[in-house]
Amino acid sequence: MSLIDALEWRYATKRMNGNKIESTKIDALLSAIQLSASGFGLQPYQILVIENPEIKAKIQPAAYNQPQVVESSHLLVFAAWNEITAEKIENFIQLVSKTRNVPVEDLKPYHDSIAGALLSRSVEDQVKWMDKQVYLALGTALAAAAKLEIDSTPMEGFKPAEVDAILGLKEKGLHSVLMMAVGERDAASDFMVNAKKVRWPKEELFIHL
Amino acid sequence: MSLIDALEWRYATKRMNGNKIESTKIDALLSAIQLSASGFGLQPYQILVIENPEIKAKIQPAAYNQPQVVESSHLLVFAAWNEITAEKIENFIQLVSKTRNVPVEDLKPYHDSIAGALLSRSVEDQVKWMDKQVYLALGTALAAAAKLEIDSTPMEGFKPAEVDAILGLKEKGLHSVLMMAVGERDAASDFMVNAKKVRWPKEELFIHL
Repeated sequence: MSLIDALEWRYATKRMNGNKIESTKIDALLSAIQLSASGFGLQPYQILVIENPEIKAKIQPAAYNQPQVVESSHLLVFAAWNEITAEKIENFIQLVSKTRNVPVEDLKPYHDSIAGALLSRSVEDQVKWMDKQVYLALGTALAAAAKLEIDSTPMEGFKPAEVDAILGLKEKGLHSVLMMAVGERDAASDFMVNAKKVRWPKEELFIHL
Repeated sequence: MSLIDALEWRYATKRMNGNKIESTKIDALLSAIQLSASGFGLQPYQILVIENPEIKAKIQPAAYNQPQVVESSHLLVFAAWNEITAEKIENFIQLVSKTRNVPVEDLKPYHDSIAGALLSRSVEDQVKWMDKQVYLALGTALAAAAKLEIDSTPMEGFKPAEVDAILGLKEKGLHSVLMMAVGERDAASDFMVNAKKVRWPKEELFIHL
């Protein structure tokens, strides 16, 4: 299936059948998320990959009782950092140094450009920026899931403070931004399964100059 | 090339050689962007697809003179709506009605859920939400470009107000959020072409529960 066909095939799956997605496919999905682009390459987030049915059951009421939370194979919670600190940028530069085998000293201009751009912002503005990076990662994740023929549901509709409390995210320096249920569609129960995809026509969506 | 291999292959291309990407590939990229997920499926944005070299040249200084702006085959400017109005939601419901061949009256609950969620928000909060939908679309676009073996550069680093003025976006009810240069890498000039991709290790990025 081409990526375009896969994107046509995917839809926000409202009902899943509880089947487990094979671990090699989940690994491939996580690899795609890991490879997602992000501003400065900083990836200012972590992703909780939840298989435990009790934890899913606790989260469900915080997500307006949407069934796919518990019917999913894996529930992904995308959580951004609560703050960008000098230490986090330092850690990132260490990672760049190690990965590319370049001395940390040589990365000072790179360090300073990231620190200059991000540490000067208020925490609120940092969070706004980090939350947007999470949306970028979700875009990568949804495309990858579709290509792997894994059904998925992108979810903004949940109470972040409740999810944060259930998962102890504050203690981890994180806050939940988005969720993504992954699993297998329950075609018999999901009234959306045959609904035609609605998209703005290309002549309205694109302006050619 | 698998999607994972394509995501490994892609990088934020700093120098392009000005070659034109064939129009069938650009069409496929635009189809992928059109198919991107968005909250409520509303796609609250338009994308300017710029080939005109004079317009690119005008934009370059507003993007800190980054060379890929003018060296690209196409420069995409992702612009979100300035406001979500009752009329826009009405237009969207008309589109759903037409696409799915369902009477508008039957879509009233759907209409009301979207209107209830979005029209109650301040314009500032609407914009914050719409801007995030643009990041999601960019995630789809970057994955699709990679799969099509089109080089690309995601760009946050530009002065939105200047770009808006150059493109007359205010008059169109839009504001620029992100840009994406697409084209062909200039391997000889781009110092990043052989740089190893830096990503947090999976054991740091993912928390399994």
